[in-house]
Amino acid sequence: MKLWQKDKTSLAAVEQFTVGKDREMDTYLAPFDVLGSIAHITMLQSIGLLTADELVVLKQELRNIYKEIAAGQFKLADDVEDIHSQVELLLTQRLGDVGKKIHSGRSRNDQVLVDVKLYLRHEIEEIVAEVQQTFDLLQSLSEQHKNVLLPGYTHLQVAMPSSFGLWFGAYAEALIDDLTVLHSAYNVVNKNPLGSAAGYGSSFPLNRTMTTQLLGFETLNYNVVYAQMGRGKTEKIVAFALGNLGATLAKMSMDATLFMNQNFAFISFPDELTTGSSIMPHKKNPDVWELVRSHGNKLQALPNEIAMMITNLPSGYHRDLQLLKENLFPAFQTLKNCFQVVRLMLENIRVKNNILEDDKYKYLFSVEVVNKLALQGVPFREAYKQVGLDIEKGTFQPDKQVQHTHEGSIGNLNTAEIKQHMNNIVGAFVFRDVHAAFDALLKE
Amino acid sequence: MKLWQKDKTSLAAVEQFTVGKDREMDTYLAPFDVLGSIAHITMLQSIGLLTADELVVLKQELRNIYKEIAAGQFKLADDVEDIHSQVELLLTQRLGDVGKKIHSGRSRNDQVLVDVKLYLRHEIEEIVAEVQQTFDLLQSLSEQHKNVLLPGYTHLQVAMPSSFGLWFGAYAEALIDDLTVLHSAYNVVNKNPLGSAAGYGSSFPLNRTMTTQLLGFETLNYNVVYAQMGRGKTEKIVAFALGNLGATLAKMSMDATLFMNQNFAFISFPDELTTGSSIMPHKKNPDVWELVRSHGNKLQALPNEIAMMITNLPSGYHRDLQLLKENLFPAFQTLKNCFQVVRLMLENIRVKNNILEDDKYKYLFSVEVVNKLALQGVPFREAYKQVGLDIEKGTFQPDKQVQHTHEGSIGNLNTAEIKQHMNNIVGAFVFRDVHAAFDALLKE
Amino acid sequence: MKLWQKDKTSLAAVEQFTVGKDREMDTYLAPFDVLGSIAHITMLQSIGLLTADELVVLKQELRNIYKEIAAGQFKLADDVEDIHSQVELLLTQRLGDVGKKIHSGRSRNDQVLVDVKLYLRHEIEEIVAEVQQTFDLLQSLSEQHKNVLLPGYTHLQVAMPSSFGLWFGAYAEALIDDLTVLHSAYNVVNKNPLGSAAGYGSSFPLNRTMTTQLLGFETLNYNVVYAQMGRGKTEKIVAFALGNLGATLAKMSMDATLFMNQNFAFISFPDELTTGSSIMPHKKNPDVWELVRSHGNKLQALPNEIAMMITNLPSGYHRDLQLLKENLFPAFQTLKNCFQVVRLMLENIRVKNNILEDDKYKYLFSVEVVNKLALQGVPFREAYKQVGLDIEKGTFQPDKQVQHTHEGSIGNLNTAEIKQHMNNIVGAFVFRDVHAAFDALLKE
Amino acid sequence: MKLWQKDKTSLAAVEQFTVGKDREMDTYLAPFDVLGSIAHITMLQSIGLLTADELVVLKQELRNIYKEIAAGQFKLADDVEDIHSQVELLLTQRLGDVGKKIHSGRSRNDQVLVDVKLYLRHEIEEIVAEVQQTFDLLQSLSEQHKNVLLPGYTHLQVAMPSSFGLWFGAYAEALIDDLTVLHSAYNVVNKNPLGSAAGYGSSFPLNRTMTTQLLGFETLNYNVVYAQMGRGKTEKIVAFALGNLGATLAKMSMDATLFMNQNFAFISFPDELTTGSSIMPHKKNPDVWELVRSHGNKLQALPNEIAMMITNLPSGYHRDLQLLKENLFPAFQTLKNCFQVVRLMLENIRVKNNILEDDKYKYLFSVEVVNKLALQGVPFREAYKQVGLDIEKGTFQPDKQVQHTHEGSIGNLNTAEIKQHMNNIVGAFVFRDVHAAFDALLKE
Repeated sequence: MKLWQKDKTSLAAVEQFTVGKDREMDTYLAPFDVLGSIAHITMLQSIGLLTADELVVLKQELRNIYKEIAAGQFKLADDVEDIHSQVELLLTQRLGDVGKKIHSGRSRNDQVLVDVKLYLRHEIEEIVAEVQQTFDLLQSLSEQHKNVLLPGYTHLQVAMPSSFGLWFGAYAEALIDDLTVLHSAYNVVNKNPLGSAAGYGSSFPLNRTMTTQLLGFETLNYNVVYAQMGRGKTEKIVAFALGNLGATLAKMSMDATLFMNQNFAFISFPDELTTGSSIMPHKKNPDVWELVRSHGNKLQALPNEIAMMITNLPSGYHRDLQLLKENLFPAFQTLKNCFQVVRLMLENIRVKNNILEDDKYKYLFSVEVVNKLALQGVPFREAYKQVGLDIEKGTFQPDKQVQHTHEGSIGNLNTAEIKQHMNNIVGAFVFRDVHAAFDALLKE
Repeated sequence: MKLWQKDKTSLAAVEQFTVGKDREMDTYLAPFDVLGSIAHITMLQSIGLLTADELVVLKQELRNIYKEIAAGQFKLADDVEDIHSQVELLLTQRLGDVGKKIHSGRSRNDQVLVDVKLYLRHEIEEIVAEVQQTFDLLQSLSEQHKNVLLPGYTHLQVAMPSSFGLWFGAYAEALIDDLTVLHSAYNVVNKNPLGSAAGYGSSFPLNRTMTTQLLGFETLNYNVVYAQMGRGKTEKIVAFALGNLGATLAKMSMDATLFMNQNFAFISFPDELTTGSSIMPHKKNPDVWELVRSHGNKLQALPNEIAMMITNLPSGYHRDLQLLKENLFPAFQTLKNCFQVVRLMLENIRVKNNILEDDKYKYLFSVEVVNKLALQGVPFREAYKQVGLDIEKGTFQPDKQVQHTHEGSIGNLNTAEIKQHMNNIVGAFVFRDVHAAFDALLKE
Repeated sequence: MKLWQKDKTSLAAVEQFTVGKDREMDTYLAPFDVLGSIAHITMLQSIGLLTADELVVLKQELRNIYKEIAAGQFKLADDVEDIHSQVELLLTQRLGDVGKKIHSGRSRNDQVLVDVKLYLRHEIEEIVAEVQQTFDLLQSLSEQHKNVLLPGYTHLQVAMPSSFGLWFGAYAEALIDDLTVLHSAYNVVNKNPLGSAAGYGSSFPLNRTMTTQLLGFETLNYNVVYAQMGRGKTEKIVAFALGNLGATLAKMSMDATLFMNQNFAFISFPDELTTGSSIMPHKKNPDVWELVRSHGNKLQALPNEIAMMITNLPSGYHRDLQLLKENLFPAFQTLKNCFQVVRLMLENIRVKNNILEDDKYKYLFSVEVVNKLALQGVPFREAYKQVGLDIEKGTFQPDKQVQHTHEGSIGNLNTAEIKQHMNNIVGAFVFRDVHAAFDALLKE
Repeated sequence: MKLWQKDKTSLAAVEQFTVGKDREMDTYLAPFDVLGSIAHITMLQSIGLLTADELVVLKQELRNIYKEIAAGQFKLADDVEDIHSQVELLLTQRLGDVGKKIHSGRSRNDQVLVDVKLYLRHEIEEIVAEVQQTFDLLQSLSEQHKNVLLPGYTHLQVAMPSSFGLWFGAYAEALIDDLTVLHSAYNVVNKNPLGSAAGYGSSFPLNRTMTTQLLGFETLNYNVVYAQMGRGKTEKIVAFALGNLGATLAKMSMDATLFMNQNFAFISFPDELTTGSSIMPHKKNPDVWELVRSHGNKLQALPNEIAMMITNLPSGYHRDLQLLKENLFPAFQTLKNCFQVVRLMLENIRVKNNILEDDKYKYLFSVEVVNKLALQGVPFREAYKQVGLDIEKGTFQPDKQVQHTHEGSIGNLNTAEIKQHMNNIVGAFVFRDVHAAFDALLKE
């Protein structure tokens, strides 16, 4: 097959391959593309590239399109390449040639950059809400079960007494560090790339500070080359932050499946939250936890995938970046689903009492006994040896009282202090400014 | 919300979360599920768990379902959980209670295991066909352009003369090593897990050797615990083999985008195979190559994702495995698409002649000159120094004749020998036996 | 070989395998282990587990050991298992039995946790200093070369004018986002785990708030189970932050090797900073850049490695964590080395002038021409078509003036604003408090 | 600092950075570098680039150096850059100028390529030996404990009866698939790259077929560009094969730590093979298994690291490749150590009898009872329901007899058949030819 004599439109096979799943991905970006356009044209008018009248009609129609998207009435026509073209097409159909003016002073690279940032910023906000609710639930379970003791394992060997108060509380506190990383991702996201055009800026006298304010960004990606270079990098940083949350949920799930196992039998769940087997009539399986674990681990692999796709690309845009959307965009919904089912499970968890009465856990108290002897004046190494001998002879019979009083221990969970830290990190996200900016763009 | 008093079916939220995208994934497995069932019931009859008459009607109806699948007329009903249930349901609707008997002596774990193996085996065969065609094309381009010289770079610095013969030929030869690894993946896949039931075998006197032969497997995963343990591991091994092919295509794509760059300008493609820009009227972009590179790199990350999801799971089935399908199954079609567009590009490649006449490439010949002096008796270190001085003084004017004669060099590409190696590795795949087995299951 | 009758010390083979490279890794932790011990015993005395006199002599000797470590006079004796034992041994040798008392109320898990945190915190501080210096250099190069134009590429195709001002400046700005992520890692690190003992707290009435202040931590890992659970997770978060910096340097290196390539020839370096070939007398290779790229990419793989090693481990300590040190600890020095050689290269970079005079770059100006027509009132789509036709007919002769004025563009680099952002993020690290705390521990 | 006026040797800082750990890595390659040189000069003489006399003395001295390396008497002098230079230096010191002739017709790229291949080939052979011994031990334990039943878990829930016969046997069989992949890696390795020079061949009339035979390679990497392109790719493929073995050992370790846990208590080990705690006198920890797991998982991350370092590099040598050695080369010894300690543990494992007598395991037999009813004519779905009701009412009292007879089940382990498969795959490695070739190079 020789193509050289043909006319210049792309071959159908090329078009199909290059578009791929991108039209589907663009639906995630649709509302943000419209918001970006409203900000862009407001700025265009301020520098004389649109008249005041043109701005009025374009804005009005863009708000209509936004409402259609919100109402689920928007879709890409079959022959339309991307969301940007679809919006421009609708405007032109409805308003005539003035619709074409919204593209002045931007490129598609530009639009994708800003759309992706707005989308990520929005999704991070939703994730934060999920984290908060899950944190609160974990803290309340921690307080509710603070007196229920659990074996604490090290090396998966019976080690020292723990408690459900500690166990639930540990995962609550874990979410604070996860949000700390997510907050840095948010800060990386929350900078305006619009105006970088194809990655080298524009000869139009754009006012990038203005679009920054209109879109509620904290600041700009100033350097236009860096604005472009941030693509991929931003997604990787966000994916890593999601991966941390995934890892926390996965670890909790691993504990849960172990604690549900009949050999542990520390926790259980109502039958409606477990799953049966097609051949074993007795099975009540922790499928929810297993799938949360699996999703969490898959998320952990995502930043690596992104890195693999962008590594060693020289500076400047490459089409490779298009595929970054495919696993990242749906990951937000997956993670939100995971948080929701985790809460469903936790709300219905049954915790076993009196676990430590079982004789196999008595060695949990060996350190307590050693410490008690030490406090009575027996040198630590001596006490350790003495208890070790009792254990070996089979005469070890500990007092099972647990008296832990220091910060963060069984008897002193510091729930309020931990809550305060969570509030601080959540408060560091400036969602309010974003909402105000979007309200201003949409209302009038 | 307290669930304990409710009745025992799974909560809708649990069901939705646990099913996830699995019904969609099951459509990949549909034809193989039917083939697995035909083999299974043939064996069941041989051990007395079905009558000969039951076998006849069941087989007949399964073949009908197979044809419906092939014709695109099969879909999972909305309230049906998975492919196995759908097939059983159809049989029962059409044949009555005898339809339920196909599940005797297996579990769903079992069925998924064998379906996945049959699916992977089939897809590997399709990939091999793509590789072969691409190999042949690369070899023919290598021969066609064997006299067209190229600068060879090391450290991205002009180094020594290369040729398009070498360049195309290198990627052809790369595919042989890739197939070598894919062949080992095929061998890992091509072992029958059926009969492992939930991963611990069955008290029915199954004849696993019989189903092995019926399904055209080379041998069994004997140990039933290992048969189950192979899940995830098998997918990881296959994904790695795909990733190698992806890496080869990605590297070729990187070369192609570089060679198309105006600073190199070694190759070009018809406009119909390139893509324009919304703001730059002169652009003819290598989007196909960039997306092939991106897909190839994404594939390279897949074995790591799988490893992350299965690592540290103790032996025995876990629901985590379900999610392994989601990125692996579509990857086959993606990779096939990549091979196809790569061939489309290569079939239309334009190669520049006389590249080395440009003065900036004259230093490519410095080794040639050194070697010539060495062959004339000047000690190598002496000759090296002398040429180095000429270069520094600006007096280096090489004879640009290239006389490379040894195996695998510009003048001696060994195309036939390399082709022979490709034939050997392709011949090591035993697709014929598989086809014969499937024909026997379906014909009658 | 049957071992059951032997006495209870670990077999030599077991000991050798379990110790592995850990003694070497412990030397990284040595000074921090001593600081942690000084804080711990100060607290022990405050709760009555040491007398004031004991505290005085122990503190004095620990300060001596600290000085020995700083002077390079400290090493683990051959038969001593780890740093903690070595310190305790030295104290006991020098002070008698009182030396053994420093271990009261802690476990080795505890000590490793706090040592690792102190080590990471220290190394992050050193990295920040490297980043700052590199940022300043990049900004000064950006200003110095702000009028030297470069071709800007998209899809590796000649696209629009860029400049060295933009190019250097982009990498400067990149470092701000990298520090943003590093700062979140610092915050995760900068929380005191000491007092978590084996991961379940202690029956001693420890004062963890006191050690938190003494060691200059911002706050505690309150929950003792979480304090332990943070191991591995913390390392992963830090590794990711290092990986971002590695990625930035790697991308700059990729650009540099490309720009040094003879087909681009945009930059060059003195011979002393390049490397020759054993067979090609003309070679001046960019080995420094290639190794920086390679180190940078290797760093990018590190968080994934860590994730792979900790994923799906249930809560509670596992010995697996020991191996996390082996690739992470040396990575800091490697990254510091990379920053240093990068600065060495950048300080000596030669930038080519008048690059854009070469005719192959004239299409860079196609958008400028389109925009100019648009500003003159020609509709954008019309102007685009007109310029496209000129290009096709070969009559395109642009005016090569570049007039970019908006924020972050060629003519308006916003160097001062970007510098301000860098100052803000650097200022958010609270190194001063740490130094004050350490000074207080060591002085007297 | 301005360097331009200085003379041309590389700056010390550049030299230190670029050499890095490479001299240490080169010691792994030393013996193979010598063998490669013997083959190379034998070929050089055959094409007239050395006289017969020169060949005799050079060969003799190279054999001496080989013996010195084997005796541990060889080291790189402080000012010598690499192994190749060190060997050449020794020859020149001992034999005069003739020593310099061994470099004719090769480059260092060439030498590294062939050295790495020879090294990897050698190490793979050692790994195969470890695998075989471990396989044999696992099979013998499987036979020895074939009648000792274990609970089989799915979803970590009590599922169906398993046995130690199955458990040990599963890991034995796993090693076969691992060797299958390793064998493909071996085939990729076992091709001669020598003669590719800097990656573009040589103008000398080299006889690459001759060096292929002399070095015992199965065939050549023909195409010289591909010979170079195989670097990195080869390492990645080998690393993946090691990673599979690591994953198998890691999974076994996870099982072992779980089975040693007091809640399971299925297996135990002599105290000498476990490790104590500094604060808990009762602890007997499975540190060996935990470190094997950690090493195994770290290995699994290695192919990804390599991919990250080579992805998107265009064809042709890059110095990036140097760093691939640093984690791969020591990984072989680590993996061998892991196999050795695993065997030490397995040789001393204590397996608990009568585990299933504990009442919590009675539901393991629910499928047996269902199947028995089904064989008696009760429809499967009916039988399933009936047993389910018994379980719910608490009246389920199964007969705990296990009658599994099919291939690969508790009662029919197919140990001999599995052994045969292992023999086949081991036999496919052609170590004998390699030994013969090396003997020929070294003897005379």
